[in-house]
Amino acid sequence: MNNFNFYSPTSFVFGKGRETEAGKYVKRFGGTKVLIHFGGGSVLRSGLLDRVKTSLANENITFTQLGGVMPNPRSGLVYEGIELCKRENIDFILAVGGGSVIDSAKAIALGALYDGDFWDFYQGKEVEKALPVATILTISAAGSEGSTGSVITHETGMLKRAANSDALRPVFSILNPELTCTLPAFQTACGATDMMAHVLERYFTNTKDVEITDRLCEAVLLTVIKEAPKALANPNDYEARANIMWAGMVAHNDICGVGREQDWSTHQIEHELSALYDVAHGAGLAVMFPAWMKHVMQHDVMRFAQFAVRVWGCEMDFQNPENTAKQGIAKFEQFLTSIGMPIRFSELGAKAEDIPTMLKVLGLGAQTMGSFVKLTEEDVKKIYELAV
Amino acid sequence: MNNFNFYSPTSFVFGKGRETEAGKYVKRFGGTKVLIHFGGGSVLRSGLLDRVKTSLANENITFTQLGGVMPNPRSGLVYEGIELCKRENIDFILAVGGGSVIDSAKAIALGALYDGDFWDFYQGKEVEKALPVATILTISAAGSEGSTGSVITHETGMLKRAANSDALRPVFSILNPELTCTLPAFQTACGATDMMAHVLERYFTNTKDVEITDRLCEAVLLTVIKEAPKALANPNDYEARANIMWAGMVAHNDICGVGREQDWSTHQIEHELSALYDVAHGAGLAVMFPAWMKHVMQHDVMRFAQFAVRVWGCEMDFQNPENTAKQGIAKFEQFLTSIGMPIRFSELGAKAEDIPTMLKVLGLGAQTMGSFVKLTEEDVKKIYELAV
Repeated sequence: MNNFNFYSPTSFVFGKGRETEAGKYVKRFGGTKVLIHFGGGSVLRSGLLDRVKTSLANENITFTQLGGVMPNPRSGLVYEGIELCKRENIDFILAVGGGSVIDSAKAIALGALYDGDFWDFYQGKEVEKALPVATILTISAAGSEGSTGSVITHETGMLKRAANSDALRPVFSILNPELTCTLPAFQTACGATDMMAHVLERYFTNTKDVEITDRLCEAVLLTVIKEAPKALANPNDYEARANIMWAGMVAHNDICGVGREQDWSTHQIEHELSALYDVAHGAGLAVMFPAWMKHVMQHDVMRFAQFAVRVWGCEMDFQNPENTAKQGIAKFEQFLTSIGMPIRFSELGAKAEDIPTMLKVLGLGAQTMGSFVKLTEEDVKKIYELAV
Repeated sequence: MNNFNFYSPTSFVFGKGRETEAGKYVKRFGGTKVLIHFGGGSVLRSGLLDRVKTSLANENITFTQLGGVMPNPRSGLVYEGIELCKRENIDFILAVGGGSVIDSAKAIALGALYDGDFWDFYQGKEVEKALPVATILTISAAGSEGSTGSVITHETGMLKRAANSDALRPVFSILNPELTCTLPAFQTACGATDMMAHVLERYFTNTKDVEITDRLCEAVLLTVIKEAPKALANPNDYEARANIMWAGMVAHNDICGVGREQDWSTHQIEHELSALYDVAHGAGLAVMFPAWMKHVMQHDVMRFAQFAVRVWGCEMDFQNPENTAKQGIAKFEQFLTSIGMPIRFSELGAKAEDIPTMLKVLGLGAQTMGSFVKLTEEDVKKIYELAV
């Protein structure tokens, strides 16, 4: 096990109706002038935004609002939010929405305390401080409600890049599974895929003897595999929604990833796909993850066999472990198909002839990416081709 | 899933040699005058205490020290520590040791900011504040390095009682698995048993559809079952020690327990045993947990069957699930025996004729305890008898 630091200080407030406590928690964490950040009309139509505002008003907390975050959140609105925060002396950002809204809020929080261009932090500049961010989660997927990360797409060149820092961990996150019951099936499935991908980026590692985190990873995967189909069959299944919602947090606050090399190349590979076609991140991952697996499987057949046996319940083929390893990947693809996810370029509207463009934007050049297998540009090309 | 709050803000600093960073972290968390609290001679002999002092001195942090914490930590030293903190204006407590040292440090931290008797908090008074506590862990077992709890034995009447509060979560905990390599086999096994018990108190629940926490509980149990025998076979197996050490934290910071009714009656039942005979907590739990299981199994045979199949790899007897359930308990007992734990009163030096005394100190009267099955005094009597 590698040396590590783990610091997850977010206060999680989980369960039915908990959004009415937003004001109380903003106050506890020192917010006095709040920017409420959100996406489209659903939080308005559902009355959620009103409930949140009432809760803030009840604690005499002033607020302003900025809506309009799109999936694969863009830099334009971030610049607008930063400007607004500076002008209005905002001291707290409350994100009401899914991962895109939260990531956008984190970017604004960074930029509000920085004199330069917030994009610097998405190009590798180390984050030192940010306004406190809190979340009221409406989509189980990205894990941003408990994570250090934020992913933003810069409109110039459609670059999709990430910033990471403990300063970006939300101070509190309200998770009410009821709020996710109205999600369309496709988004529910995208969310399930996203959280599985967060685990898989950590699961496939060269670090040996990391049984505790292996088992925690498997715990999350087994939960999603059991609960996602239940939520799809009955969108109002509160228990399934609750299990999925908490699994999404556990998948990405890094309790499953500490002490081990992590990979994250599939996320980078997917980012070029979703930046180019603006497809849902989860759908892009459903297409790219099995392709990545097929390409790298030979690097550690026994790890893929473990994945097959422990996660997918495959029988171990002791004479030919490779058969088991392949069966695990096949079962993963079957599962993705069963929950309505695409697993090929064509289902996504992506085209083989755009692969050179994606490689160009990725800009790997002579470098490599990932850690389980260090991928060259040629490897990435093959992975894209495997997904066609 | 029940509504819940989860707040685990401890900064974990894990790995080889990390204790040399103690001073840096004390400074980061605002400590200026530190009480170093520890147990017996081993931290002196090993040079650990010297390394910690050097690390504090390097950051110009002043400190005083109080050693002498015994297993099943007593109120006497706590009173002494509180007095010392008040006299010397201590603003930070650094516990160097295992669960007993940490629990004693937490009690001192409570009492140092309280005008009354610290024991009030162990008799149900709500905790509002405490001095910051940090830990350098030397025994993987109690999980106190990441938990809200502290268990102290009051010398008057040998009452063993617990206080719980988010204010008692350590601000940071340094976990270096190397420090546990010198632990005797018996203590290693007691620690493994203790962490399994922390999970089991959460696992046996009446809350339905809590797959994510079920799976996380099973992840910890499977890890301990695999890794503890490796650490016993080769005490210097760093990887086994590392897995066990992190498992012990995960077992008890409540990530495995949120959203579900928890039981904790076996811990109370064991407390009377270890208070009376001063036996190791883990050894007492090894004796009492299987007895509790046998007594309550009929309440939910399928949950015990799940435990047998998922944790112990038993074949499900679909025609007679009770056989599977019983097999799981038998496997648990076999495992405990295999790691050198007692599973009967006689192995512990406990006596059947003392059962009335234990029941009297427990003082249940007409009340019940536990939640999986609400135990009456008669139930507890039977559980003690099953352990004879």
